[in-house]
Amino acid sequence: MKTMRAIEMQGGKVSLKTRKVPKPGAGQVLVKSLACGICGSDLHITRHGNEVFDIYKKLGLLPEETVTEELSIMLGHEFCAEIAEFGPQTQRHLAVGSRVTSVPILLSQGGAGIGVTPGLAGAYSEYFVVDESLLLAVPENVSSLAAAMTEPLAVGLHAVSRSNISDQDVALVAGSGPIGLAVINALKMRGIRHIVASDPQTDKRQAALEFGATLTVDPGSQDEVQLASALCDKGRLVIFECVGIHQLINSFIQRAPDKACLVVTGVHTAETSVNFGFATVKEMDIKFSYYYTAEEFASVLQAIAEEKVNWQRMCTGKVGIDGVVAAFDRLMASNEHIKIVIEPWRNGALELFAGEEA
Amino acid sequence: MKTMRAIEMQGGKVSLKTRKVPKPGAGQVLVKSLACGICGSDLHITRHGNEVFDIYKKLGLLPEETVTEELSIMLGHEFCAEIAEFGPQTQRHLAVGSRVTSVPILLSQGGAGIGVTPGLAGAYSEYFVVDESLLLAVPENVSSLAAAMTEPLAVGLHAVSRSNISDQDVALVAGSGPIGLAVINALKMRGIRHIVASDPQTDKRQAALEFGATLTVDPGSQDEVQLASALCDKGRLVIFECVGIHQLINSFIQRAPDKACLVVTGVHTAETSVNFGFATVKEMDIKFSYYYTAEEFASVLQAIAEEKVNWQRMCTGKVGIDGVVAAFDRLMASNEHIKIVIEPWRNGALELFAGEEA
Repeated sequence: MKTMRAIEMQGGKVSLKTRKVPKPGAGQVLVKSLACGICGSDLHITRHGNEVFDIYKKLGLLPEETVTEELSIMLGHEFCAEIAEFGPQTQRHLAVGSRVTSVPILLSQGGAGIGVTPGLAGAYSEYFVVDESLLLAVPENVSSLAAAMTEPLAVGLHAVSRSNISDQDVALVAGSGPIGLAVINALKMRGIRHIVASDPQTDKRQAALEFGATLTVDPGSQDEVQLASALCDKGRLVIFECVGIHQLINSFIQRAPDKACLVVTGVHTAETSVNFGFATVKEMDIKFSYYYTAEEFASVLQAIAEEKVNWQRMCTGKVGIDGVVAAFDRLMASNEHIKIVIEPWRNGALELFAGEEA
Repeated sequence: MKTMRAIEMQGGKVSLKTRKVPKPGAGQVLVKSLACGICGSDLHITRHGNEVFDIYKKLGLLPEETVTEELSIMLGHEFCAEIAEFGPQTQRHLAVGSRVTSVPILLSQGGAGIGVTPGLAGAYSEYFVVDESLLLAVPENVSSLAAAMTEPLAVGLHAVSRSNISDQDVALVAGSGPIGLAVINALKMRGIRHIVASDPQTDKRQAALEFGATLTVDPGSQDEVQLASALCDKGRLVIFECVGIHQLINSFIQRAPDKACLVVTGVHTAETSVNFGFATVKEMDIKFSYYYTAEEFASVLQAIAEEKVNWQRMCTGKVGIDGVVAAFDRLMASNEHIKIVIEPWRNGALELFAGEEA
């Protein structure tokens, strides 16, 4: 029986484990993980697993009697990988060794999410299984690190698509972490004139400008909603919540101007108190954005290949599989990073790219 | 100095008062109120005035130092009236005595709302002031009672416009009070195939059917969201919240199917607890609908004139000005009525139309 190293989350902790290499089923392909981003939702589920699993239970995605403290998840859904072995009933248009990426979902297993489903290998592991039908070949000129950025960039593109933002509207992007930057990227590609980025950290505001923000603001020293509203002429204000602090939803509802649209991209699993009266008198729209379509995903990979995306600025460091636990501790404690990528095929401590403090 | 009778709300109570007949200013017209509907929001502001005024303060619509218990409001914004006297700088295309209605707003006074603004006469009063530029003549064949239904019907039309509901979508209208019926009316005129109406009262479910609902459900005995979701084939479920109970928002978010749109028409001024995680994983849209456009308002009046609207079923009783206080007590206590219309020009106790219990 072949074994592999895998990162597993259980009871609020991640650890390095030895696990069986999965066998690809019908229509599936076993892939070797080359690069996998650490997502904010990976940190969220590690911190607030019980909240997340509670929602899964209420939605019927987990049996009511599950002891959630005992659930373990092999994380990882933002990946670039290499074809290792074809399962039965596969077309094999791509050769073994080809670099691929895909939307992190197994249609072959009832739509189970890769990196979020108990019992399924995620892309933090050395090996995992994907659907052949969903594979996208990674073009030669796209590095594995860049290909691993496809997923978060698609999240940003989808949020912008859902917003239905028009040329006359002003965008306020709250939070310049990976999703905020991905939203800014999509807004820029859509030709939006006013893209206001708010973040308390100087470094992240700088990254926002490099991604295409036209104005940045420190929300600790200035009301970012007021600042962005002042730029609205004929259009609406469209606020993209990319922070993940649930109290911000009520705060944006209270501060938004008339007809504002609030697009929530953060995953908020805690109960929060809201006064919807403000949303009513302003006739607001609140849209929740969570995933993306396969078309959006593919279009982002193409944009990366055409060098239209400043993905390097999003990717701030990398780490080998034996350095992940320490990297998680660091990401949980502070907030200095944008996106750390795991290379599960090697060892190595967290290494930051130029421009970041050691 | 001419005086008139007016209904005034102060400190959670309505009372019959003697007030000055207002003088029409530039571009304004003094009108005599012929009929004015009692709106759910009139009951809400009487019950929860402090919550409403608190929102006004936070939005800068009332000075922070206002003692809200002392504020008085002359209610009434769903009206049919008769031109009594023209102010200066008016065009006078309509004759004195012409029956008119209009959106209840004074553009001539900074957009102040008629029937909701302290110091301004509302349409529960014998006389009040409107903008000449906003007046719509009420056609000969439209009764004053019918014309007073224009406003709530426009609220329903606007909610349906905001929903962007498509032919393939299924509508669930929660609550068959005046706004629920108005929404059903607009959905029917838009040609929506599945219109599910939910209300705990048999009478109101019957009214919903007469307005165009294709299926009704008692939410006390069956999950209305599940029932309506089962009708969705290619389309989404669009839920219209026309109940006004703020806890329902979270309940709908929890029970809604994927991609559902929730249109909130109720005025919810209390803090409410919500878990937005459910809205996220379902990628929901939540849209708040509050008013309507002048075009929507005019199109409803025209539909009434063309006898396309079953307005009679919406209007369940009428009352003279000296019967309003008792009628309010009754409306606050129970919930048997759909829409009571005040005729401020006469005396008379509450009188229910056929089909209603005495």
